[in-house]
Amino acid sequence: MPAREITKLTLYGDCASGNCMKTRFIADALGVDYDWVEINVVGKETQTDEFLAINPAGQVPLARWPNGRILPQSNAIMLYLAETTPGGERFIPSDPFARGQMMSWLFWEQYSHETAIAVRRYHKHLLGKSDDDIDPGLLPKGRRALGVMELQLTYTDYMVGESLTLADVALVAYTRWAHEGGFDLSEFPAVRRWVSRVETDLDIEHAQAA
Amino acid sequence: MPAREITKLTLYGDCASGNCMKTRFIADALGVDYDWVEINVVGKETQTDEFLAINPAGQVPLARWPNGRILPQSNAIMLYLAETTPGGERFIPSDPFARGQMMSWLFWEQYSHETAIAVRRYHKHLLGKSDDDIDPGLLPKGRRALGVMELQLTYTDYMVGESLTLADVALVAYTRWAHEGGFDLSEFPAVRRWVSRVETDLDIEHAQAA
Repeated sequence: MPAREITKLTLYGDCASGNCMKTRFIADALGVDYDWVEINVVGKETQTDEFLAINPAGQVPLARWPNGRILPQSNAIMLYLAETTPGGERFIPSDPFARGQMMSWLFWEQYSHETAIAVRRYHKHLLGKSDDDIDPGLLPKGRRALGVMELQLTYTDYMVGESLTLADVALVAYTRWAHEGGFDLSEFPAVRRWVSRVETDLDIEHAQAA
Repeated sequence: MPAREITKLTLYGDCASGNCMKTRFIADALGVDYDWVEINVVGKETQTDEFLAINPAGQVPLARWPNGRILPQSNAIMLYLAETTPGGERFIPSDPFARGQMMSWLFWEQYSHETAIAVRRYHKHLLGKSDDDIDPGLLPKGRRALGVMELQLTYTDYMVGESLTLADVALVAYTRWAHEGGFDLSEFPAVRRWVSRVETDLDIEHAQAA
């Protein structure tokens, strides 16, 4: 990562990371002007002295502004961009309880979904490990997370009611790549339909396995 | 867990869980009237058919209202109570960037802090496992998390600037019990002072090891 002058919002991230791609999905949807600095996680570029000086937590994505401010955490970056960019209010329910439900899914995504589906994909797809060398608990944990989503999406078209919110953006990031982690979305038909719906809404390439 | 009529906000939780206690700290600080239903996590009371019918994710804490609405996820419950209760605005910065920083800490707490410090405490203190039977990665991961907090608290009295926010409430819940997970807070003097400060602010018993 070369030292660089920051002249506009700069997003540091890895294109192979769903967490990082979330911040691009929202920035692109909002028409925010930003620079992207690719940081290779597998190559340990988040653990260099130079990157740790910017973010001591050693994690991407990271948002950085010309005034020196930085903000880590994918879901916090999405929330901040949506709250402070004209048009961003369409991604956040105005009803307090619906907003609470969105927040609840955002925390659940990081605690119960990413930690199984993204982690298994990381080991299988990015590190190339065989199934025998991957924590056997990740497959049932991830299938349970997909089952929780399937139940919700049987009732509503989106994770919170009938329109796209940040909860959908957060959850689609790794769900659309779940097959790379060895998860079969054909077991979860409502989830599969929702992935296509959200990809269309965000105008991103359909990445889901056939 | 007996079936019950819900006549006011009801919080389902385990008093031995920091995640659950967060919701009480905020409800108490705001003077919210609520019922507490104790759910024993070690005793697998979150996995009963009756509890899963209320929260398919099988997790506590859970907030439930007389109108049938439910909200899971500790940090989402705290946010909702603070946003909808008079006086709650004092726990959420009005400045958008400071609010973004608070959100960032809330997500970091669930992803990088709870998953090491709370998990090691769960195995050591609640399940009574010996150190040899606990994932050896949890101790360095938790120490790194405490180091990230120490760095912030060297500069500011609270996690976001100079006043208490939900980020402090979320992070104090397990940090004050970190010694039960085998973490030595004397290595992190700014964190230790901050724990006492937040316990005093919230008027909760000082639980930290001497």
